[in-house]
Amino acid sequence: MDMGSYLAAVRENTPLVHNITNYVTVNDCANILLAAGASPIMADDRDDAPEITSICNVLNINIGTLNQRTIDTMAVCGQKSKELGHKVVLDPVGAGASTLRTNTALAILSQVHPDVVRGNVSEIKTLYFGEGSTSGVDAADIDKVGEKNLLEAVAFARDFAKKFGCVAAITGAIDIVSDADTSIIIRNGDAMMSTVTGTGCMLSALTAAYIAASDNTLEATASAVAAMGLSGELAKSRMSALDGNSSYRNYLIDAVYNLDAAALASGAKYETR
Amino acid sequence: MDMGSYLAAVRENTPLVHNITNYVTVNDCANILLAAGASPIMADDRDDAPEITSICNVLNINIGTLNQRTIDTMAVCGQKSKELGHKVVLDPVGAGASTLRTNTALAILSQVHPDVVRGNVSEIKTLYFGEGSTSGVDAADIDKVGEKNLLEAVAFARDFAKKFGCVAAITGAIDIVSDADTSIIIRNGDAMMSTVTGTGCMLSALTAAYIAASDNTLEATASAVAAMGLSGELAKSRMSALDGNSSYRNYLIDAVYNLDAAALASGAKYETR
Amino acid sequence: MDMGSYLAAVRENTPLVHNITNYVTVNDCANILLAAGASPIMADDRDDAPEITSICNVLNINIGTLNQRTIDTMAVCGQKSKELGHKVVLDPVGAGASTLRTNTALAILSQVHPDVVRGNVSEIKTLYFGEGSTSGVDAADIDKVGEKNLLEAVAFARDFAKKFGCVAAITGAIDIVSDADTSIIIRNGDAMMSTVTGTGCMLSALTAAYIAASDNTLEATASAVAAMGLSGELAKSRMSALDGNSSYRNYLIDAVYNLDAAALASGAKYETR
Repeated sequence: MDMGSYLAAVRENTPLVHNITNYVTVNDCANILLAAGASPIMADDRDDAPEITSICNVLNINIGTLNQRTIDTMAVCGQKSKELGHKVVLDPVGAGASTLRTNTALAILSQVHPDVVRGNVSEIKTLYFGEGSTSGVDAADIDKVGEKNLLEAVAFARDFAKKFGCVAAITGAIDIVSDADTSIIIRNGDAMMSTVTGTGCMLSALTAAYIAASDNTLEATASAVAAMGLSGELAKSRMSALDGNSSYRNYLIDAVYNLDAAALASGAKYETR
Repeated sequence: MDMGSYLAAVRENTPLVHNITNYVTVNDCANILLAAGASPIMADDRDDAPEITSICNVLNINIGTLNQRTIDTMAVCGQKSKELGHKVVLDPVGAGASTLRTNTALAILSQVHPDVVRGNVSEIKTLYFGEGSTSGVDAADIDKVGEKNLLEAVAFARDFAKKFGCVAAITGAIDIVSDADTSIIIRNGDAMMSTVTGTGCMLSALTAAYIAASDNTLEATASAVAAMGLSGELAKSRMSALDGNSSYRNYLIDAVYNLDAAALASGAKYETR
Repeated sequence: MDMGSYLAAVRENTPLVHNITNYVTVNDCANILLAAGASPIMADDRDDAPEITSICNVLNINIGTLNQRTIDTMAVCGQKSKELGHKVVLDPVGAGASTLRTNTALAILSQVHPDVVRGNVSEIKTLYFGEGSTSGVDAADIDKVGEKNLLEAVAFARDFAKKFGCVAAITGAIDIVSDADTSIIIRNGDAMMSTVTGTGCMLSALTAAYIAASDNTLEATASAVAAMGLSGELAKSRMSALDGNSSYRNYLIDAVYNLDAAALASGAKYETR
C-alpha cells in the first residue's frame, strides 16, 4: 500500500467535507481539514444541513455535545449522503458514557450504515455489545489495546467491521483499522496527543477527507490514521522546555499542513494482517 | 484617507461588539476583537441578545451554523440595533450554498438594512441576484476577483452598495470596499489567510469594531480590511519551516494585536476610484 | 497552606469535570483542564447531561451564551450533582449585562447552592444586590478591586460567601477567595490575561478540578486562582516582540501544563485574613 498516494489524493481533489460535530473541537476540525488540503463546512440545522450535504463530497458525523436538534439532522443527512453515494464517517464520542450517546450512535449505525466508524476501544465495544461504560470521553483502562491483547483486539475489530458492514478504526496507543477481512495495525503516534482535546475528533474529520478522495476506504482510513499519528510524532519533536499541550496542538495541525506524500510513505509504521 | 486614525479610534474607544455568530470561529472572533482593542460579547438567545445589543455599540451578524433559534435572534437584534442608532455588519457565510442561508441573508438585508455587508464574491453575487451557487464557504473560481476583471468587480460592488444602501466589502485576493459612489481597492493580504478557518469571520468582527469607532463607515471598513490584510502579511513573514496554518492563525491575531496606527498608515496598499 | 498539594491532588486524582459552558471559550476550558491533569467532558442536552454528571466528579456551570435549552440543563444537573455529593462551580458570565443572565445566575444560586461562585467583581455584586449593570463581560471600572478599596472588597466577599453559603472567588487585578470566616488575597497574575477571551471561564473550569480533588474547598479554590495567576506571569515571561494575545493564550495553557507543586508553592503570592 502506498499511503502517500492517499494523502496526495486529498491535496489534488480538495474534498468538501460536511461536518455535523460538537462545539468543543469544531475549530480544530476545520483547521486540520484545511491543513490536509480539504475544505470544511459545518452545518447542523435541519433546514440547512441536508442541502449542504448534497453539495459536499463526504459527511463526518460526530456525536459530542449532541442534542435533539442535531440528532435529527445527523440521521437525515446521513441517509441523504448515502442516497447520493457519498461516504459517511461516524465518531461515536462518549458512547457508553450516556444512554443518549449510545442509542444515538446505534441508531446512526443501523439507519445510515456509515462507511467508517472511528472511536476509542471503549466506544467501539459499547456499540458492538449494545451497552457499555466508558470513562467520559476517554477509553477505560481495562479496554486499552496494547501488545499483549493485540490479537484479540484485531479479531474484535474484524468482528465489528463484519457486523456493521463498515471499516472500524479503533485508535489509541496502537491503532487498528479493519474491514471484515483485512486489518491494518498502525504504530505511529505520541502520548502527547491525549493531552489535547479533540485529537480523536480531528482524526475523524481527516478520515472523511481521505476516504472522499479514494475508492479504497480501508487503506484511505489507515493512511489518515498514520498521517495523524506521524504528525503527532513530528509535533512532539518540535516541543521545547516551556511548551505544553496548547503549543502541541498548534504543532500537530502544522505538521498535518506540512506533511507530504513522501514523508507519510516513509514515516508510516504499519503492518497488515 | 488616514487609515491609521481608524485603528487608533478603536483602541481609544474600546467599542463593545455584540456578535451573533457561528460556533466554528467564534473564539478567534473574540480574540481578534480583543487584539484590536475592542471588547467582544456573544449572545444569541432570543431572551438575552436584544438586551445585550442595547448595551453594545455595534452588532456583527454572521450566519454560519445558523439555526431557527439564532435566525430569529438575528432579525430582532438587527432591528433593535438600528432603532438605537447602532451600526450593523452582515457576514452572509455560505449564502448560495443553501436556500436557508441565502434566504436568511436576504431577509436580514431587507429587514435590518446593515451598514456593511462583508463576504466573498460568490456570497455577495448570490445576494445581488437573489440566487447563486457557492462552493461551500469559499468563493467559486469563476467568480474570483483578479486584475483582469477588476473594473467589472468594482462596478458590481458599487451596484450592490447602491441597491442595498450599504457599504459592500468584497474580499479575496484583491479586496473591494465600496459605497454607491466611491470604491476603495485594497491589495494587502497573503494566500496563507485562506488556509485558516474563519479569516472572513474575523474580518467581519474587526470591521464592526472599526465602524463603531468612526462616523465614516466606508473608510473605516476599508481600514479594517487593510489592517487584516497587512496583519496577514506580517504573519507570513514570521513563518518558519515547520510552521503551518495553526501557527499562522496565532501570528495573524498577534499581528492585529501589535499593529499600530503608523504601521497601518505606511503598510496599507490601496487606491480610491 | 501548601498550595502545591492541591495542584498535586489534581494530577493524582484526574477528576472528571462536567462542563455546561459557552461555545466561545469551551475549547480552551477543555485544554486547560487537560493541562492541569484533569479530564473534561462537555454535555448540555437535557436528555444527556444528567447522566454525564453522574459519572463525573464535579460540575462547572458557566452561563455565557446561555439559552433556554441549556438553562434547564444547568438547573437539573446542578441539583443532581448536589444530590450525588459532587461539588458545583458557578461562573455567572455577564450577570448584570442582561436580565436573563442575572436571573439565571440567581436561580442557580438558590436552587443548586454552588460550592464556589467565581466571577469578576461586577458580576458578583450583581448577584449580591439582585441587580446591577456590568460592562458586557468585563468588570465595570467603578467596581474594580485595588489596594485602596481592598478591605472593603474583602468584607464584601465574606458577606457574599455568608449570604449564599459558598466560597466566593472575586477575580481581577487582585483576587479574593473567601468563605464566611476566612479570606485569601492573591496577588498573582498579569494584565495580558485580560487580552485573551475566556481566562475567567478557564479559571472556573480549573477551580472545578481543584475542588474535586480536595476536601478543603476554600484553599483548593485559592490554589486554582494562584495557579492561574502564576501561569499568567510565566506566560508573560515567554512573550517576544512579535507575540500578541494569541501566542499568550498558548503560553498560558502551556504554563498550566508545566506547572508543578513546587513551582506553585514558591510562586504563589497570597495572604490570609
